[in-house]
Amino acid sequence: MELNDKERMILDAAAEVFADKGFFKATVSEIANEAGVAKGTIYFYFESKRDLFKSLITSKTEALHQGIRKGQQKGESFENQIKEIISSKLKFFAEEEGLAKSIIYDYAGMDEGFKLELWELRNKHTEKIAEIFQKAIDDGVLRNISVDDTVTVLLGTVHAFGYKNYLSPVEEDVSIAETVDIIYDLFMQGVQK
Amino acid sequence: MELNDKERMILDAAAEVFADKGFFKATVSEIANEAGVAKGTIYFYFESKRDLFKSLITSKTEALHQGIRKGQQKGESFENQIKEIISSKLKFFAEEEGLAKSIIYDYAGMDEGFKLELWELRNKHTEKIAEIFQKAIDDGVLRNISVDDTVTVLLGTVHAFGYKNYLSPVEEDVSIAETVDIIYDLFMQGVQK
Repeated sequence: MELNDKERMILDAAAEVFADKGFFKATVSEIANEAGVAKGTIYFYFESKRDLFKSLITSKTEALHQGIRKGQQKGESFENQIKEIISSKLKFFAEEEGLAKSIIYDYAGMDEGFKLELWELRNKHTEKIAEIFQKAIDDGVLRNISVDDTVTVLLGTVHAFGYKNYLSPVEEDVSIAETVDIIYDLFMQGVQK
Repeated sequence: MELNDKERMILDAAAEVFADKGFFKATVSEIANEAGVAKGTIYFYFESKRDLFKSLITSKTEALHQGIRKGQQKGESFENQIKEIISSKLKFFAEEEGLAKSIIYDYAGMDEGFKLELWELRNKHTEKIAEIFQKAIDDGVLRNISVDDTVTVLLGTVHAFGYKNYLSPVEEDVSIAETVDIIYDLFMQGVQK
């Protein structure tokens, strides 16, 4: 997905409105208003509110994937690559709390077809991360485990810490850098003595 | 929470109705109907639909806590105790899909006060699991890590596998026993070679 300036501006506005009102209460008119464009302009670039929501998630994950590709090209260490992913995700929870809540919570109310589309986005995302794990297994950095299970463990752990520290009713005052180190250590070494 | 037969029967009915309709669409009348009692009977035992929902979650987690206590009294190994917890949780996802979805999804729509009450239930639950980890650290089975972080890793991982295998739009055909072993192995050993 290559975005032009107008699309980028519209998605930024959509992010604001979804964060503030959630998916279901947000309207395309409000998003147009926030972006300072006519409603027709939005429909020129995006099919529907659903399309806006999906494009927004796609653009967020693509930014992360671009970071991953850069790390791969630069030959960053496995540790740096994984810590960068953990950190980006925690930052999203901490800094875009409203949008994170909308994505996590509003998913429940989506129809099955849209849930499936969003689940496919999730799968594309996990495949990118799986590539890093596959290379680390080939390089002898990781045990010979299922890369798919490994992604599930990492994302489940990051979401649990992200929710607990930054979205839960009793937020905890733990810095992102500290949380990244805790997650990476437990993920790599496990808990056994 | 000690339940008498009538309360137990009402909560079983509430579980059916919440699983079928979700928290917000369910009504106390339907729960009374499902239980085969008058609506007044429900209000004799429970204050509100909210109280029914909270009591249901409490009774589910207390059943799990009772299992934990039994395991501790019998002197079960750390491995057996943890595998039993992972297994009970995955079974809940796999066998009570509707209720699991209602608890995960409807949480979003609750008011802040009720979210806090439910978060406190979660904390009581994590404290029980933390006890097992503390003992395992004292016994030299686990590294000297934060028990709180350890619970977050375990629950985040179990939820991610439970969701992916049993609740997601594309459910996966992995048995509970197999999933328990995968989770326990990655949790204990980590992914590093």
